[in-house]
Amino acid sequence: MHLTSEHLHDDGVLERDFTVGEIPGTLWTPASTPAPLLLMAHNNGLPRTDARLVARARFHAAELGYAVASVDAAGCGDRPRSAAQEHARAEFRRAMQSGGPSDEVFETFIGPLVEQAVPDWRTALDALLALPEVDGPVGYSGWAAVGIRLAVSEPRIAALGLFAGGYVPQAQREEARQVTAPLLLLLQWDDEGNPRERALDLFDAFGSTQKTLHANPGGHLGTPWFEAQDQGRFFDRHLR
Amino acid sequence: MHLTSEHLHDDGVLERDFTVGEIPGTLWTPASTPAPLLLMAHNNGLPRTDARLVARARFHAAELGYAVASVDAAGCGDRPRSAAQEHARAEFRRAMQSGGPSDEVFETFIGPLVEQAVPDWRTALDALLALPEVDGPVGYSGWAAVGIRLAVSEPRIAALGLFAGGYVPQAQREEARQVTAPLLLLLQWDDEGNPRERALDLFDAFGSTQKTLHANPGGHLGTPWFEAQDQGRFFDRHLR
Repeated sequence: MHLTSEHLHDDGVLERDFTVGEIPGTLWTPASTPAPLLLMAHNNGLPRTDARLVARARFHAAELGYAVASVDAAGCGDRPRSAAQEHARAEFRRAMQSGGPSDEVFETFIGPLVEQAVPDWRTALDALLALPEVDGPVGYSGWAAVGIRLAVSEPRIAALGLFAGGYVPQAQREEARQVTAPLLLLLQWDDEGNPRERALDLFDAFGSTQKTLHANPGGHLGTPWFEAQDQGRFFDRHLR
Repeated sequence: MHLTSEHLHDDGVLERDFTVGEIPGTLWTPASTPAPLLLMAHNNGLPRTDARLVARARFHAAELGYAVASVDAAGCGDRPRSAAQEHARAEFRRAMQSGGPSDEVFETFIGPLVEQAVPDWRTALDALLALPEVDGPVGYSGWAAVGIRLAVSEPRIAALGLFAGGYVPQAQREEARQVTAPLLLLLQWDDEGNPRERALDLFDAFGSTQKTLHANPGGHLGTPWFEAQDQGRFFDRHLR
């Protein structure tokens, strides 16, 4: 792991960019370490520098005392991408803007992204847990499909805080039955891009004996502020 | 209001039985008063002395600092009942034990119970708010149908923490659209007596712009302990 930049915020959070091989990431650590680790990913390969993800990461570090890390998925964020990836991404964005992608567009673009992302997260996890300021056990927060894939292949994931879940590739919808880690699934009741019935079916499918669903009215970006605190308490129950 | 008995618990909670006219009730007050008031009712007219309701009331008083009150509905708990009420109750219990009541049995027994309960709760509320140790605003916790009826007829109800909601009389399912108070609806995903789809439809129907759904796996009595704390934080957001 190479640390490529470092910034100490006024709230005591140390923000550092890193690379592990070809994988670029950011680590936010609280003033008091060692701290348990949260892996935080934004849905569908949004960059780790996205303002909402950064705000969530800094809240969990500053207010809740977690070390938080995020990496860019292949072809996303700071990573090089092929012309084919650019084309697929443009097509996916067009479909999202016109009322949600078809299952075919979704599977073609997101399916491989999920499959490729998980080995990267595991590589980053190995490097992060070797740092003296990072401690196990490990939680995962955010992008539902990657969380499912990671949870079934990575026994170090001890708790999952997932968001949305209306659109999840078929492979991960099936894998959800094998997930046994405690789960908090947060969804927006009127999420235009994530059909409610599919999200409820996904919650039903999880194999975890401890699983909780939270839902609030409004669209994809309308999650109320107290849900970040609720997620923090969920992680506190399982990671501390 | 006549106070008829008084017991000071080791945790500092003062438990007092009272009557207002013909209505018997219990008030639990925390060590530090005045405290905001929670009205707490058990589904379908279970007595206010039921162990689960008492445990919930004392938790909210001792741990969360609320004044908590419960009253028996007409024909329930300590109140006199007619032969007709006894007959209807026995029929309802038989139906509950054999896999859930038919809509007809349910409407016949529970519908009038809800209608009659709400004026009693309002009478008790007037008397409780006149006590120096009780303060507004007021929250309501428990029996969904009574909470809906009370919220649409009683502007002093500032937050609703409702449980289950699979079986709610048709009149209250329709009134739910008129409810505007902030709402936390808690349901058990596998509640044998409360069909899930009906509970989700009820959540959808509420008019409240601030409404949150919490769901956990398991049957009617399997609610995890942390949901009592979550409900406490919900009330803290709206009553303090």
